[in-house]
Amino acid sequence: MKRLKVVIAAIALAAALAPARADEGMWTFNNFPVDRVEKAYGFRPDQAWLDHVQLASVRLAEGCSAAFISARGLIQTNHHCARQCIEQLSSADNNRIAYGFYAREEKDEPKCSTIEADQLIEIKPVTERIAKATSGKDGAAFAAALKAERAIIEQECAANDDNLRCDVIELYNGGVYDLYKYRRYQDVRLVFAPEEAIAFFGGDPDNFEFPRYNFDVSYLRVYVDDQPLDSRAHYFRYAKADARPGELVFTSGNPDGTYRFDTIAQLAFQHDVSLPREIFYRAELRGQVTRFSAESPENERIARTLLYYIENGLKARKGAFATLVDPTIMRNRAAAEQALRATVDADPALRSSYGAAWDNVKTVLQRYRPQADRFLLLVDNGDFRCTLLQYAQQLVRHAEEAGKPDSERLSEYTEAQFPDTRQQLLSSAPVYPELEKLMLTFSLSKLRELLGPDDAFVKKVVSTRSPAQLAAELVDGTGLGGSELRKRLLDADPVGLAASNDPMIAFARTIEPELRAARKEREDGLNAALTRYASQIARARFKVAGTSSYPDGTSSPRLSYGAVAGYSAGGKQIAPFTIVAGLYERATGARPFQLPLSWIAARAALSPEQPFNLVTSTDIVGGNSGSPLINKDAEIVGLVFDGNIYNLGGDYGFDPAVNRTISVSVGILREGLANVYHADRLVSELIR
Amino acid sequence: MKRLKVVIAAIALAAALAPARADEGMWTFNNFPVDRVEKAYGFRPDQAWLDHVQLASVRLAEGCSAAFISARGLIQTNHHCARQCIEQLSSADNNRIAYGFYAREEKDEPKCSTIEADQLIEIKPVTERIAKATSGKDGAAFAAALKAERAIIEQECAANDDNLRCDVIELYNGGVYDLYKYRRYQDVRLVFAPEEAIAFFGGDPDNFEFPRYNFDVSYLRVYVDDQPLDSRAHYFRYAKADARPGELVFTSGNPDGTYRFDTIAQLAFQHDVSLPREIFYRAELRGQVTRFSAESPENERIARTLLYYIENGLKARKGAFATLVDPTIMRNRAAAEQALRATVDADPALRSSYGAAWDNVKTVLQRYRPQADRFLLLVDNGDFRCTLLQYAQQLVRHAEEAGKPDSERLSEYTEAQFPDTRQQLLSSAPVYPELEKLMLTFSLSKLRELLGPDDAFVKKVVSTRSPAQLAAELVDGTGLGGSELRKRLLDADPVGLAASNDPMIAFARTIEPELRAARKEREDGLNAALTRYASQIARARFKVAGTSSYPDGTSSPRLSYGAVAGYSAGGKQIAPFTIVAGLYERATGARPFQLPLSWIAARAALSPEQPFNLVTSTDIVGGNSGSPLINKDAEIVGLVFDGNIYNLGGDYGFDPAVNRTISVSVGILREGLANVYHADRLVSELIR
Repeated sequence: MKRLKVVIAAIALAAALAPARADEGMWTFNNFPVDRVEKAYGFRPDQAWLDHVQLASVRLAEGCSAAFISARGLIQTNHHCARQCIEQLSSADNNRIAYGFYAREEKDEPKCSTIEADQLIEIKPVTERIAKATSGKDGAAFAAALKAERAIIEQECAANDDNLRCDVIELYNGGVYDLYKYRRYQDVRLVFAPEEAIAFFGGDPDNFEFPRYNFDVSYLRVYVDDQPLDSRAHYFRYAKADARPGELVFTSGNPDGTYRFDTIAQLAFQHDVSLPREIFYRAELRGQVTRFSAESPENERIARTLLYYIENGLKARKGAFATLVDPTIMRNRAAAEQALRATVDADPALRSSYGAAWDNVKTVLQRYRPQADRFLLLVDNGDFRCTLLQYAQQLVRHAEEAGKPDSERLSEYTEAQFPDTRQQLLSSAPVYPELEKLMLTFSLSKLRELLGPDDAFVKKVVSTRSPAQLAAELVDGTGLGGSELRKRLLDADPVGLAASNDPMIAFARTIEPELRAARKEREDGLNAALTRYASQIARARFKVAGTSSYPDGTSSPRLSYGAVAGYSAGGKQIAPFTIVAGLYERATGARPFQLPLSWIAARAALSPEQPFNLVTSTDIVGGNSGSPLINKDAEIVGLVFDGNIYNLGGDYGFDPAVNRTISVSVGILREGLANVYHADRLVSELIR
Repeated sequence: MKRLKVVIAAIALAAALAPARADEGMWTFNNFPVDRVEKAYGFRPDQAWLDHVQLASVRLAEGCSAAFISARGLIQTNHHCARQCIEQLSSADNNRIAYGFYAREEKDEPKCSTIEADQLIEIKPVTERIAKATSGKDGAAFAAALKAERAIIEQECAANDDNLRCDVIELYNGGVYDLYKYRRYQDVRLVFAPEEAIAFFGGDPDNFEFPRYNFDVSYLRVYVDDQPLDSRAHYFRYAKADARPGELVFTSGNPDGTYRFDTIAQLAFQHDVSLPREIFYRAELRGQVTRFSAESPENERIARTLLYYIENGLKARKGAFATLVDPTIMRNRAAAEQALRATVDADPALRSSYGAAWDNVKTVLQRYRPQADRFLLLVDNGDFRCTLLQYAQQLVRHAEEAGKPDSERLSEYTEAQFPDTRQQLLSSAPVYPELEKLMLTFSLSKLRELLGPDDAFVKKVVSTRSPAQLAAELVDGTGLGGSELRKRLLDADPVGLAASNDPMIAFARTIEPELRAARKEREDGLNAALTRYASQIARARFKVAGTSSYPDGTSSPRLSYGAVAGYSAGGKQIAPFTIVAGLYERATGARPFQLPLSWIAARAALSPEQPFNLVTSTDIVGGNSGSPLINKDAEIVGLVFDGNIYNLGGDYGFDPAVNRTISVSVGILREGLANVYHADRLVSELIR
């Protein structure tokens, strides 16, 4: 009996711990599997190639990817990655989401007040330093030591230079720490954006689906000292032709956090507790914002981007939930975990160091499970999804944190991290009171619903007013909608802020103790414990299987590889490319399948056979939006904007048979700019 | 090894199959456990007592319970059970939900156009007949034979008398079939309703919670031939005093379908597939209707009851979901199933008859799992939640079904069942176009979202219009909002209906084939197979443990027993009664904690110590709303209106430690009528 078990374990272990399968992996630039790529595709990227790709790639700090594509700081990303900027530059009379934008001359390029572009210039190992600083520590002491050492490393690296951004990245669930040093650019301007109707053709119904017809692109330009950045040294050129089926391609982007190395207990927790909660919350909010949008064209305009983000996140989470109830996927994950545990348990030394980690994860999750609602409401949604409250909180927190030693501050207020926070706080984006009230009312109602009207914090917050009354008082009463007041209060010393009688500032102050307590409990309690045990599991995996794997996504630069490849689903074979003719066939005249006038007018100027979107077997997840899709010559053959429905399971694993990246093909980017938009300035810059 | 397993199985079996624990059980009137009640509480109900309680109890056909409480056909139920009627009798100028209603004289009692009250007069076993009719049949043939035999039995019983209602009830998951014969009353009028602010004090935040302060009552009167019903023979009297802690009490009501005898595979299916889908759907709809309500006082009024039902159902489902992710409950259920299976497998005869049933259930669920969205959208929400479309569908279906033999009709169009359907169809309730458009737009959007824009049915339905355009065309174009047209089209022969050019009728006709196909697939495919295997499991359970248990809820009359008893939760001991003083303490002045003026004015006239709501250990679920809470003298000591949060797990099991029924105590019913509302006519009728 025992014997059979070991054999089964060994087989499962081989499958589970073998180097990742062909095309799987979101690889770091300092551990890219060149051997494997060469073996599979006959091309071996050398160090110069990797360095060039790394330096031509761009990370957008708010959660997207991009790429330099000209010598004058031009970058390409998705329309949906720049849509907050496009919306902020819109008004009731000038709806740039609906009608698009094109700066005819460089001087007409307006600033995006909240976009930060980062260029990774160096990776340095710091695992030893972190290990030393946290050695022998546990719980809150471990969390404090880890935070302090990170802050010190980041501050040494950034050296008070706001043009540098330094992040200590926790890789392999805490098994490895690397310092990522970026050149930081906060003057990013809008050059071109198409109409939403073509950028997001098919809307939410087609989102995460394929075949697809999205021209999901925007062009931005990085400025330094009010001049376009000189990016001669590293940028991607547009390939002359679209890619071919089977061709080797790469994506260079910044995948968000994934859960591929989480334990089964963690996945069960997501399935039973956290994901359903998030979906219930978002589904209801979607309902409210959808109805708000239907009330008037202006409401539709001001809520458009918000609704996009809500729906996109909702569909992604529903896809994740569907993956977690798929018996096959969970069985594979369970088998892999069993295999690793069996191997660890069979070796006394491994067992004594790491054997208890899995059960400890389970126990910790169980202990914090009753806090799930509190964490969702007070930490994940601690700004009550209200921009004005977020501003107030940033001011209140900055005033408090600035007086502390750097290593003790909340992470986003350290010297190294505050420039990003400051840029958000001083944004010149318009704030819409009716939408702010809706969001704040919703958040307050949820607070009362989920924690119950008798909860002490709920009583303190809502008191004897209804959520709607309180929200109206705060939003109507605050002056934080204008960035001048925010600037003044930020520059004022804490005494100056304390003197403010702005009701939103007062409200932020009132609720701050409980928000901090909840955050502390999650970071120093739950997260610190999970990191501790997860890093034990990671080390066990290193010992058993070596370091030939990739780490879970961490919103930092990664390189993936794969091929242009269709797939088979629901009994149908799906071709890797869609073509222009398909777009016109799919258009109905009713949103979201209504084409903008520009594309209707340009129909004759476009070749019906021109590839439009394509799918590739590269391994991407959320955060990769805007990644360049490049060939082995490091030329752009596409612009990543989405994954197919099976890609939503990518948070938990990679299924090479069906998981696909979706990109806009390079040919239609050229054709669209030239023949639909006649964006000659842009076209000639791209050709140069 | 095997031996130990058997011992464990035997222990679990004893626990699982022992007669239901004290206080557990929703018992049929023909199998009430008098011995057990006597043993636990020293009172043995005799047959006369049981008959009296049965005949004084009332089933409301739309899904609630009630009780006769006077000799002149007066019945008591919840405010929330009559709220559709109260809303239908309201207008913009006369909001009876907000301000309540009291008919000063009998002649002022207005008719509730969609309430049907049923009085159970006879139960007859028909298991043998059903078994004979379905013997040896499987799949669609089994489903057809079962449906036909039911229709024949019901028609024989009702004998074309619309004043009788005959339902064949499937008990013990198909292990037993009984014929329930009711006296049917369709002329039910409104006598009294309090303001919603006190009926539903605390609103959604306090819903399913305790302590509680709801005056959730309404009084209705049954009329026959335009005269109050003579109900002298059987009605409940109000007890002189409130119940005492520990006192034996009973609830007589109509519990909805429960899942206490479902297999683990069925529960997993609910957890993974059906419940999340329903919650996602409802949460989003709640968001839309909430925002719609906030747009104007009139929107608030017309959507109030709809929103109530959505929120109530949502909270109930979230509670059910929470139960299904509770490891303890699921472990107990799994142990019980394992125990029964082990016992069956150990006996060759049992094994050959029933051993495969559990795996067969699992296989069937797996097979139909890809249909989950289709069933949700085309069957559960096949009327697209649009009243006008529902009317059109009823007309279209009636025209088609009326031409078929009774035994082949859709169940709600048989001679026995159609009176209920006809009452709904001919309702004089107002229809609000803006709300109809919202619901239809939402349903069409969900259809496109969940089935995908490329689904053939979606293409046929939505075509080239947007959901909002289509909904506006249909709702603005139809004449079905007025009941005269519906009456005319119902009376017209099928040829008359065919001549109608009403766009909603045309739309109903267009989508009918796919709706019928989906329904047929679920009823004849999924449900028939599940019934078949579930009845095998039920028979196995009878063989192993006898018939000393109760069946799952079936929306038909049941009797439960228990005691007035507090409970302990979250480390706190919760007393069984709340008192008047607590109501005034909990009031804040802001909805939903705002008291109506009547209760503010009456404060001095009420004793602060007067019990308000109470909890009892009786076993109820949804559908029991409005049940009388009676003592051993069959006097009313309360009016059931809710369960506590642990009661939401009652769909899957009964935890006597914390599962509690919540009722309005009889004393506050008297006091409220006399001293808050000065409803003298009603008070004197109740005293008589």
